[in-house]
Amino acid sequence: MANRRAADRVRVRRAPRKGRYDRASIDAVLDRGLVVHVAFVDGEQPYCIPMLYARVGDRVYIHGSTASRAMRTLADGAAACLTVTIVRGLVLARSAFEHSANYESIVALGRFQPVEDAAERLAAFEAFTEKLLPGRWNEVRGPSRKELKATTILAMPIDEASAKIRSGPPDDDDSADAAIDTWAGVVPIVTSFGEPEPSAGLRPGIPIAASINRLLDTAEASK
Amino acid sequence: MANRRAADRVRVRRAPRKGRYDRASIDAVLDRGLVVHVAFVDGEQPYCIPMLYARVGDRVYIHGSTASRAMRTLADGAAACLTVTIVRGLVLARSAFEHSANYESIVALGRFQPVEDAAERLAAFEAFTEKLLPGRWNEVRGPSRKELKATTILAMPIDEASAKIRSGPPDDDDSADAAIDTWAGVVPIVTSFGEPEPSAGLRPGIPIAASINRLLDTAEASK
Repeated sequence: MANRRAADRVRVRRAPRKGRYDRASIDAVLDRGLVVHVAFVDGEQPYCIPMLYARVGDRVYIHGSTASRAMRTLADGAAACLTVTIVRGLVLARSAFEHSANYESIVALGRFQPVEDAAERLAAFEAFTEKLLPGRWNEVRGPSRKELKATTILAMPIDEASAKIRSGPPDDDDSADAAIDTWAGVVPIVTSFGEPEPSAGLRPGIPIAASINRLLDTAEASK
Repeated sequence: MANRRAADRVRVRRAPRKGRYDRASIDAVLDRGLVVHVAFVDGEQPYCIPMLYARVGDRVYIHGSTASRAMRTLADGAAACLTVTIVRGLVLARSAFEHSANYESIVALGRFQPVEDAAERLAAFEAFTEKLLPGRWNEVRGPSRKELKATTILAMPIDEASAKIRSGPPDDDDSADAAIDTWAGVVPIVTSFGEPEPSAGLRPGIPIAASINRLLDTAEASK
């Protein structure tokens, strides 16, 4: 019964065909996204804050300053909602009404817990760095004791989550609107990486990191 | 006093240099974004749902099915938080700790109200369509009475909002870490549009719409 209620809270009610509840679908969106929107309540006011994150196994990790109000509220076990959204295209129909966007999103409900174990904290730091740029962890200086002390790391188990995916053309191909002389279809939204911009303080002779070259090669290949 | 308290709730506390409170900064992010994450509370659980939206003047509009639970909760005047986030680049430092992302985001607090006025509802529909693709409104069939009846349109005034912007290189140029032989800088994240994909049911001989050609030309020009 507890499980049924749990599933109910994240069930995709509108357009239920778009809903996915298997972990592979949920992990795919979590692993593709870069930013999670974290909602929580402070007093009676909901807040929704964008954060970097990483998934490791069954948990989503976030981090922030120990002085951050959001991190303190979440560390205290406030009910949270995590949402990751990736927009894939403009859905252009013959009618204004059927205009939409193609997207993949996940919503996960739960509560965060502070990560205290030193090894898990370091693994989370590695996961944050690797999520931003795979291969980066081994190119950079790891966190110092002082940096670790200044950082709150929180983890939320992924156990009440759903994915919602809209893909494909507009829904009016089989309607009377198909007779309208207006182009209909999808304009894909493509996210890629631009030319790396060296820091002003970068000493001469330091080459682009291997991780960045791999990133740019991969992005090129996926076009 | 009410105003001071209001501003407090959206004040950027961490890294206050990143905060902006003027309407031009807030509108710029609202107008660049495509998706808003809307947080609200149902029972004691916060939810955060991605939605399409449009700004018209001093108001943010959203729309959805009259049967949607989120729309019904918001239409009832639930406290809401709107967040729009645009990620602009990977910030790659010499230390794991200083890794970050460049981004622009806005957070707006308030409550939605249903839009009942017929002219305002139609104007909102136009704004949704034009936000997705400028110029599209005049190419498509407008909403029918039945479609309007099936659509809840909500508006929230923008009066308690802040923008937060991180730009530029990593923060370790002036630190001891600048001696590390690791490339540091920013890899821009670029969002562009791919080749339009016609709907399977598109009748032969219908050309790409002028709005789409303009969109692709503009995106090309901004590279």
